[in-house]
Amino acid sequence: MKHIEKLAALRLLMKKEGIDAYIIPSSDPHISEYLPEHYQCISWTSGFTGSAGTLAITQDFAGLWTDSRYFVQANQQLQNSGFELVKLVVQHAPEYIQWLAQNLKDEATVAFDGNLASLLVAQQIKNTLEPIGFKVNGHVDLLTPIWENRPSLPIAPAYALPTEVTGKSTEEKIADVRSEMKKLRTGYHLISSLDDLAWFLNIRGTDVKCNPVVLGFALVTPETVNLYIAPGKLDQNALDGLTKAQVTIKSYTDVTGDIAAIPTGARILIDPKRTCFALYDLIPEGVQIVESLNPSNLMKALKNEVELAHTRNAMINDGVALTQFFKWLEENVATGALTEMSIADKLQGLRAQQPGFKDISFDTIAGYKDHGALPHYKAEPDSNYTLKPEGLLLVDSGGQYITGTTDITRVISLGQLTQEEKDDYTIVLKGTIEGSQAVFTAGTRGYQIDAITRRSIWATKRNYGHGTGHGVGFFLNVHEGPHVFNGTATDIAILPGMITSIEPGLYREGKHGIRIENLVAAKNIDENQFGQFMDFETLTLCYIDTSLVEKSWLHQEHIDWLNAYNAMVYERISPKLDQEHQAWLKEKTKAI
Amino acid sequence: MKHIEKLAALRLLMKKEGIDAYIIPSSDPHISEYLPEHYQCISWTSGFTGSAGTLAITQDFAGLWTDSRYFVQANQQLQNSGFELVKLVVQHAPEYIQWLAQNLKDEATVAFDGNLASLLVAQQIKNTLEPIGFKVNGHVDLLTPIWENRPSLPIAPAYALPTEVTGKSTEEKIADVRSEMKKLRTGYHLISSLDDLAWFLNIRGTDVKCNPVVLGFALVTPETVNLYIAPGKLDQNALDGLTKAQVTIKSYTDVTGDIAAIPTGARILIDPKRTCFALYDLIPEGVQIVESLNPSNLMKALKNEVELAHTRNAMINDGVALTQFFKWLEENVATGALTEMSIADKLQGLRAQQPGFKDISFDTIAGYKDHGALPHYKAEPDSNYTLKPEGLLLVDSGGQYITGTTDITRVISLGQLTQEEKDDYTIVLKGTIEGSQAVFTAGTRGYQIDAITRRSIWATKRNYGHGTGHGVGFFLNVHEGPHVFNGTATDIAILPGMITSIEPGLYREGKHGIRIENLVAAKNIDENQFGQFMDFETLTLCYIDTSLVEKSWLHQEHIDWLNAYNAMVYERISPKLDQEHQAWLKEKTKAI
Repeated sequence: MKHIEKLAALRLLMKKEGIDAYIIPSSDPHISEYLPEHYQCISWTSGFTGSAGTLAITQDFAGLWTDSRYFVQANQQLQNSGFELVKLVVQHAPEYIQWLAQNLKDEATVAFDGNLASLLVAQQIKNTLEPIGFKVNGHVDLLTPIWENRPSLPIAPAYALPTEVTGKSTEEKIADVRSEMKKLRTGYHLISSLDDLAWFLNIRGTDVKCNPVVLGFALVTPETVNLYIAPGKLDQNALDGLTKAQVTIKSYTDVTGDIAAIPTGARILIDPKRTCFALYDLIPEGVQIVESLNPSNLMKALKNEVELAHTRNAMINDGVALTQFFKWLEENVATGALTEMSIADKLQGLRAQQPGFKDISFDTIAGYKDHGALPHYKAEPDSNYTLKPEGLLLVDSGGQYITGTTDITRVISLGQLTQEEKDDYTIVLKGTIEGSQAVFTAGTRGYQIDAITRRSIWATKRNYGHGTGHGVGFFLNVHEGPHVFNGTATDIAILPGMITSIEPGLYREGKHGIRIENLVAAKNIDENQFGQFMDFETLTLCYIDTSLVEKSWLHQEHIDWLNAYNAMVYERISPKLDQEHQAWLKEKTKAI
Repeated sequence: MKHIEKLAALRLLMKKEGIDAYIIPSSDPHISEYLPEHYQCISWTSGFTGSAGTLAITQDFAGLWTDSRYFVQANQQLQNSGFELVKLVVQHAPEYIQWLAQNLKDEATVAFDGNLASLLVAQQIKNTLEPIGFKVNGHVDLLTPIWENRPSLPIAPAYALPTEVTGKSTEEKIADVRSEMKKLRTGYHLISSLDDLAWFLNIRGTDVKCNPVVLGFALVTPETVNLYIAPGKLDQNALDGLTKAQVTIKSYTDVTGDIAAIPTGARILIDPKRTCFALYDLIPEGVQIVESLNPSNLMKALKNEVELAHTRNAMINDGVALTQFFKWLEENVATGALTEMSIADKLQGLRAQQPGFKDISFDTIAGYKDHGALPHYKAEPDSNYTLKPEGLLLVDSGGQYITGTTDITRVISLGQLTQEEKDDYTIVLKGTIEGSQAVFTAGTRGYQIDAITRRSIWATKRNYGHGTGHGVGFFLNVHEGPHVFNGTATDIAILPGMITSIEPGLYREGKHGIRIENLVAAKNIDENQFGQFMDFETLTLCYIDTSLVEKSWLHQEHIDWLNAYNAMVYERISPKLDQEHQAWLKEKTKAI
């Protein structure tokens, strides 16, 4: 069935059911960002494969609301699908709800599948549309009836991570979560989000590509922990560990019945951003619902000393692979044999030789020339550029090591460097430096770091359409919450131990893209009469190419930071390199 | 009755009524910041006279939650009151609710007077405390029974502002608000906030000190506008204008009955931050409530060209008075006859000679030496310092002119300048400059400007405990929303025409305080492939003293800004000065 036919089939069903608008969010019952194939509903319906977006369909209009990272890609992929791109003004904002409020007739009926929407999104839809007289139905699945040969749920095996790696036992984590439940006076707590679950029970798996999570739910009480998971998924070691921690294993589908059976008068803690509307709606009337961030979500974000030490080590290994890669690239680009796809494979192969490597942490973005201007570009056979000794190459990549997750972007020139390229590169680099240098008080939010990083870029009347940084897991998802460095009003303080990317960029459509990304860990520094001050430790270890720097854009404090960073890279990585690579890296990291 | 006796009386009443905790917010039925005496409940109960705070009382504890601007003042004023200062971590955050959640026994009853709490605050209290099993009663007034000789409501006269001043007629404003009501599909809209009401109907009054507002409510439908106001308040000219605009005048107290009589099936637009819980709770069941920012609040914030032109002119007049003041101060400080109070009077007298002057816009803060370290200090007879030729003097003041509202802070040295004073002064100045120089994209929020302004101050491990800036009215309140420049997650975009202060500071308890404050108006500049860019026009016109500048803290771009600013001040103000003042200002504004 072509996309345009699927749309027609949906509209027919909508008419039959009396639905004026149907919303298809990009999510699953775990409110995942990266989805198992079974839940890739937007891609199946419209052809758009980006990781963020929402479809809204009426009889007159079918739109994909997505953000500027995906404008070019969406325009291509939506051709002849019947869907039109609607450009989000604010990344991740539910702007389609305002559109529905303004464009539907009085007393319209709006529907969605509550398994694909968080409670928060469902509340936003209801709170906006119901007061103006619309009917909202969150229990309508129009896809299952028309989706032939829908992929089944993944059944990949899962395993345990030892305390030597995680720094905290499952028993301790259960006790910590119960302590937060007690503070909130709740006797039940449902964990739906897969990375929270993996952290909470010290388990990992391969149910979602690049994300080492395990499909499941946990229901926690002061006395019990139920883990709902497909039978046979856990290996014996993991089963033994969970049994020791007094976790009861139940079938994945049992979660619905157990939620519906929570007794009246009980109080349950759920996270409205990380619980789907369908499960929320199963909670019996008479059960008090306390909405709050999953305690495990914040605990997971605050890396402990064991996790930080492992991560620092993983960064050295990752840096070795990256050094080998960039040297190899430099030496082979003139052959004319390298393509965007082949270099991504090469980089993955080099990472795979490093200790503890399990997978890449997301699809490598190797964007040459104008492809670099697509922030989430992934080379495919029909787009795959061959590299030549000219133009800029952007490589955004990362690894999943059993001792940490990496995510790094570097830009290099393959030759014939232009002044515009140098200017853009240096302006982005200045942003990366000012973000990395930031000193701030306890209580500072990610939106403040976003502004500090953008300030000098904005001053040149340039900007980038994506956030400045995202939380990064410890051998977990490359995007994790609750904190984020972007312009949205995300009211989460930056706390010691949080790992975040700093990755400003500049994208000139049809020309080139630049992004310079490091991971940093927040830490306390001085406390004085003006408050508790914090700053960032830069974790990522890979030289920043100085041959593209236009020094007139920089103050001495920027140059000092750059030289100190490159010196640190050499100092930490060179002991693991052979002489030839050492000499090459020495040259790349020499002070300017 | 002493404060400690009032507290005892309240606790007795609480026991009688079965109330475990009683909350007294700082507000009134209009959710005002500055209160008529009748509603100064916190001051009457506890003795604390600051403009922001909340009392929460149990049988075991009585606390005032307020922010760092008021810590020193609160500690003094609460002595022997029975109340203890609880220091807010985040300015304006309802942290007392978390305290109640954690400190009361199970199933506790918490009460407050819904006339003193916004719907938003009431919802925060209910949404936090009810799910954990507490009872919340928002209809308990424990103050009226024990408050003897409570001041009555103000009955000051009110008058109209002509369209030549406001730039927009009442008829147009009514049409604009109705258009927003239509977009939100609402047939009723209640305006409770006094500055919104004054803007909406082009009226001004003197019901609240320094704030030219008029006590009243408006209820708007597509066909009618009711103004609820004390009989006899409006002069004939204002009455005529409102009659022409088809506004019906009703008694102030009629609003409750009219709200209770809204028919079932209707939809009403109310602003949860700007409507009191008591009025909200009168809305009949069966009326749909649409919660959204008052349309008038945002419209008011976006100054039109007429208002901006008047404001620029008012700034010249204000700058003349300030120039006269600082010259007089410099020449008379050695006499030993000047005090914090006498110079505040002198400044008010100079402003009063300027055209269109109506009042000061807030109590002048003249803080000498360590008094400067109290950001909201007001000199009283028993604290009033005499000025000497030494130390720093901070003067934060403003005027209400019929053509605009001003608010400015300057710091000068009276002699024996120290290196610490110069460093602190220059570091604050750098913040003021970097905030004023900010270039940013459309959609930027105030919290981003806050971070840009603090960045270089944070870099020295210094900070200030208040926001970076607040919205300022057009001949209206010196603090207005919806936008604000501070670290809180206030999700309001900065739009062209918004006037805001930029006022970083540094406060060394027992030593000195520094704050350098200008008002700025946001405006669009270039639009290019990276977006719509904006910056600020600095409106305030008063020289910035360069004799305190330690140049080594500044880059050339900061010095260039400072010289250009001082040159502009001279250029615009000097034509209105006599030769002697011209010469003096010429010297003060010469380039460094």
